[in-house]
Amino acid sequence: MQNKMPVILITNDDGITSPGIAALVDAVKHLGKIVVVAPDSPQSGMGHAITIGTPLRLDKVNFFDGIEAWQCSGTPVDCVKLAKDKILHAKPDICLSGINHGANHSINVIYSGTMSAAMEAAIEGVPSIGFSVLDYNYDADFTIAKKVVCQLTTRMLAKTMPNHLLLNVNIPITTDDNFKGIKLCRQAYAKWDEAFDHRIDPRGKDYFWMVGKFVNMDIEPGSDVDALKEGFASVVPIKIDFTDYKMKDWLTNEWSDII
Amino acid sequence: MQNKMPVILITNDDGITSPGIAALVDAVKHLGKIVVVAPDSPQSGMGHAITIGTPLRLDKVNFFDGIEAWQCSGTPVDCVKLAKDKILHAKPDICLSGINHGANHSINVIYSGTMSAAMEAAIEGVPSIGFSVLDYNYDADFTIAKKVVCQLTTRMLAKTMPNHLLLNVNIPITTDDNFKGIKLCRQAYAKWDEAFDHRIDPRGKDYFWMVGKFVNMDIEPGSDVDALKEGFASVVPIKIDFTDYKMKDWLTNEWSDII
Repeated sequence: MQNKMPVILITNDDGITSPGIAALVDAVKHLGKIVVVAPDSPQSGMGHAITIGTPLRLDKVNFFDGIEAWQCSGTPVDCVKLAKDKILHAKPDICLSGINHGANHSINVIYSGTMSAAMEAAIEGVPSIGFSVLDYNYDADFTIAKKVVCQLTTRMLAKTMPNHLLLNVNIPITTDDNFKGIKLCRQAYAKWDEAFDHRIDPRGKDYFWMVGKFVNMDIEPGSDVDALKEGFASVVPIKIDFTDYKMKDWLTNEWSDII
Repeated sequence: MQNKMPVILITNDDGITSPGIAALVDAVKHLGKIVVVAPDSPQSGMGHAITIGTPLRLDKVNFFDGIEAWQCSGTPVDCVKLAKDKILHAKPDICLSGINHGANHSINVIYSGTMSAAMEAAIEGVPSIGFSVLDYNYDADFTIAKKVVCQLTTRMLAKTMPNHLLLNVNIPITTDDNFKGIKLCRQAYAKWDEAFDHRIDPRGKDYFWMVGKFVNMDIEPGSDVDALKEGFASVVPIKIDFTDYKMKDWLTNEWSDII
């Protein structure tokens, strides 16, 4: 990768006009040839959804000064798939997703379109990182995030990375003085407790809004949630093999008569 | 669980009117109190998507003789969340998802709404199984699948299961004579190669259909894809912790100066 400009595919789930993706482009544009392929509208919470039953649109846009960019009508995962087949006609050297407005630590990785886009690239064998800041606001401050992005991306490009390297990176809301640096973590054991807000529409029919409360059930040290609380940016390496090998051993003994 | 009827939550991603979910209800209705909460339209490929930006609808329906059933306007994961909060007002004893029309072995687990629904229940600590048959047709034959469903569900209800037990079960297309039984496996190392079908609409604008080719890159024995080829139903226990602990060790050494 050192002899030619690396191709850096950039995507997100907040949509191509979100400040987070502009901050991401700005943080790494000196590190390679940037190509942006991102959703034309917000796709938060889309998880690893793909578009099967309807066709996709792809349009070239001019949102980033001097940088090739395309907006896509599909999900974040669709963007990565389309970028490879119809825009790059090859695998990019790395894929960066984000910077997401809002946390994607712990269990959020499963709901997050930002992380799913990075996961899709990693499935293809493209080293990838999903970045998120712990601030849902449109005008979130990306100053510290951009430094973390630049540092990790530089490292990822410095030499050939392991196949399927995939990092989930979250950045706390803090000041330069209080920022503790980057910490390697494991995914916290956590979940969302949903209590749906039940309302009646003007025609008298029920409808429900999802409102969730984050519950951290983790009591061991070393989780991403803990690191973020302490003022670190958390880095969790993510695996695409969902097999629960411990449970596999348990079932081998317990269900040996039928399995 | 032996003293009272266990509550069995049933959902899917093909939609509440698909033959697969009717087969699933039929296979287990003698094993407990069944409550069906499923999407009102097909949701294949929705992955772990949740509905954040729009409200959800939930309507009682009469599609299954004598069985409580609700259709929901949201994704499979929405169905599980709504079922717990607004219909059951408690966790079910187990959750079954499917029977999906089409394979969800190997990497498909990440794209599958069927598996995501089961994963969501497992996140809640509800032992869960996602079932799929390797036949995309509407009139797929569920005879063998129903036997597998009944056998595994009976076993899951026989005694208290480990927290977060989650199984991905796929059933081959075969005859009773050639069916080899149930085999415990690991997820095959595989991916989808997408080549988008590029077309021009009547207004002269581009559009793209996703068309994928499944690529099995696994060369070791023990995968679900292999078991299915041999005529077994495959059972893969699934884990919700995405942390790549091996990669974490590698990074601890390689990036020790910044992480």
